[in-house]
Amino acid sequence: MGPAVATKAQVDTAYQLGRAIAQEGWVLLTGGRNVGVMDAACRGAKSANGLTVGILPTETVDGLSSAVDVPIVTGLGSARNNLNVLSSQVVVACGMGAGTASEVALALKAKRPVILLEVSQEAKAFLQTLSDRALACPEGIESTIRQIHQILNNDDKS
Amino acid sequence: MGPAVATKAQVDTAYQLGRAIAQEGWVLLTGGRNVGVMDAACRGAKSANGLTVGILPTETVDGLSSAVDVPIVTGLGSARNNLNVLSSQVVVACGMGAGTASEVALALKAKRPVILLEVSQEAKAFLQTLSDRALACPEGIESTIRQIHQILNNDDKS
Amino acid sequence: MGPAVATKAQVDTAYQLGRAIAQEGWVLLTGGRNVGVMDAACRGAKSANGLTVGILPTETVDGLSSAVDVPIVTGLGSARNNLNVLSSQVVVACGMGAGTASEVALALKAKRPVILLEVSQEAKAFLQTLSDRALACPEGIESTIRQIHQILNNDDKS
Amino acid sequence: MGPAVATKAQVDTAYQLGRAIAQEGWVLLTGGRNVGVMDAACRGAKSANGLTVGILPTETVDGLSSAVDVPIVTGLGSARNNLNVLSSQVVVACGMGAGTASEVALALKAKRPVILLEVSQEAKAFLQTLSDRALACPEGIESTIRQIHQILNNDDKS
Repeated sequence: MGPAVATKAQVDTAYQLGRAIAQEGWVLLTGGRNVGVMDAACRGAKSANGLTVGILPTETVDGLSSAVDVPIVTGLGSARNNLNVLSSQVVVACGMGAGTASEVALALKAKRPVILLEVSQEAKAFLQTLSDRALACPEGIESTIRQIHQILNNDDKS
Repeated sequence: MGPAVATKAQVDTAYQLGRAIAQEGWVLLTGGRNVGVMDAACRGAKSANGLTVGILPTETVDGLSSAVDVPIVTGLGSARNNLNVLSSQVVVACGMGAGTASEVALALKAKRPVILLEVSQEAKAFLQTLSDRALACPEGIESTIRQIHQILNNDDKS
Repeated sequence: MGPAVATKAQVDTAYQLGRAIAQEGWVLLTGGRNVGVMDAACRGAKSANGLTVGILPTETVDGLSSAVDVPIVTGLGSARNNLNVLSSQVVVACGMGAGTASEVALALKAKRPVILLEVSQEAKAFLQTLSDRALACPEGIESTIRQIHQILNNDDKS
Repeated sequence: MGPAVATKAQVDTAYQLGRAIAQEGWVLLTGGRNVGVMDAACRGAKSANGLTVGILPTETVDGLSSAVDVPIVTGLGSARNNLNVLSSQVVVACGMGAGTASEVALALKAKRPVILLEVSQEAKAFLQTLSDRALACPEGIESTIRQIHQILNNDDKS
C-alpha cells in the first residue's frame, strides 16, 4: 500500500519490494492503479514473474496498472481500502498519504500485521498508539522480507 | 455465478464449464465459497490448471473453496455481488437463486454480457425483459464457449 | 424501490404510496436520486410531512432528490442496493428494471418481506420462484398499506 | 466519530457535543452502535430533541444505540467507515482508535473538514501531515460549534 503521488525513494523501494515479494513466490496485492507506489510495486513483481492482483476503486478498468494480472473492479471508491487489507496476510505501507493512512488504520482494526517503510517519525509515533501489536519498521528490503517470514511463520504456529 | 445449494446437473455443468474456461486460458472468477456452483466451477478450472479468483462475502477466508488460487476477502456480505459482475468480462449464471438473480440483474445494470445455463423458462422470460441486449441461453458447454468467444471478439472490435 | 426511468402510472403509484407511508408515521427510504420512482415516492411522503431517507450510489449529493431529508452518501455504485434492502423492514418495488430486480433479489436473499406493485406477470412468475415466502402482490395503495401492517404485526409477534 | 471503548472524558465530551449539535438544529450522524462515543453523542442529541442517524457495520440492527432515530444497516463491516464521512458535512473525531483514525484519514482523502477533540499530541502531529487544510483542534464545546459554523458558512460562499 502507498500513495498515488510518491517520491522517487518511495517508488524505488516499492519496485524493489514488489520484486522481492515475487521472488519469494508470494502474491502481490495493491490498489491496482497505474500510478505511484501501486504501479511500481506491480512492475517490480512482474520483473520477477510474480502474480499481481489489483483492487480498483473504480467501476471500470480505466487507470489500471499494466503490470496487474488480476484486476478486481469494485466501484466502491475509498471503501475498497478495507478490501485491500482484509485480502492481505501482511500489509506493507511504503510512504504515506490520507489513503494509505486509512489502510494502515483499517489493517490494525482488522488485526492484520503492518510493516511501515519510508514513513515519517510522526507517522510511526501515532500509528504505534493504535495497536497493542508493535508495528514493524524494518530498514531495507532484505530486513522487510525477513520480517514477513517471521509473521507468516508465527501465523502457521497459531 | 450460481447457487450455493445446487442440483447435481448444475454442479456437473459448473465443473465442465470451469474446466473449459481454463482450457481457453481464461481466468475463472466466482464467489469463492466451498459450496455449490462456485466450488464446482473452481474445481473444474483447477483440473485443467487454470487460474481461479474467489470474491468472498465474509471478513475471513473461512469457507473458502480449496480450489481458489486468489481469494479476495471483502467483508461486504451480499454487496460483494456487484464486485463479482464488475470484475467479469462475461457473466455466466449456472442455475438460479436469489443471490444469482441479483448478480444477473446487477450485470445487466452494469451492461455486462450475461449467459444463462440451467435456468427455468420463468427466469429466461423475466430476465430478458430487463435488458435491450438479448441474454444468451446456449445449449451445452461447447456452445457456451463459442458464445463467449463471440462476445470477446465483439468487445475487441468496439 | 423502483426504476429511475418510470412510466406515468409507476410515478403516480409511487407518489401515492409515499404519501400513504408518511401518513402511517413510517419513515420512507429510497435510493435518493431526483428521478423516477425514488423522487416521486419522496415527494409524496413530504406532501404528508413524512421523514425521507435517500441512500445515494454516488460520492456526492449531486443528483439528490429535493424531497430527501436525510441523504446517505455511499460512493458504492450499485453495491448500495444491498444497503437499501438491509435498512428496510419491508421492501416495496414499484415498477421494474435491472436495478430494482437486483434489490428485490437481494431483499429475498436477506429474508426481507417484499411487495410488488406495477410489475409484469413475467416478474411475478420469476421472483416467486426465488423465495419460499410468497411475495405479496396487492392491488392498490390501501391494500398495500394493509399488507405492510400485517407484516409488521407478524414481526412484532416473532 | 470516536472509539467504541472510550474514556469518561471522551464520553462526556461526546454527550455535550451531541446535545449542542442538536440545539443548532443539525442532524447528528454516527456509527450507530450502543457503545462509547457513538452512543453518548446520540444520547446527547436526543436530550435536546435532535435527529440522529446511525450507519451500522452489521447486517442487522442488533447492537444499535437506543438513541438512534434512523438506522442504516450496511453489512459492510469497516468499509462503512467511508460512508460515515461521505455522508457528513463536517467530521468531528472525539477520542481516537484504529477505526476513528481510518475515518479521519478517509475524511481527509474525501476533502471533508475535520475537527479533532480529546486526541493526543501524536495524533494531531501526524494527522496534520495528511492534508493541506489545517485540521481544527478547538478547545471546548462552544469553540467547536463556532468552528463548525465557520466551516458551513465558508461552504455556502464557495
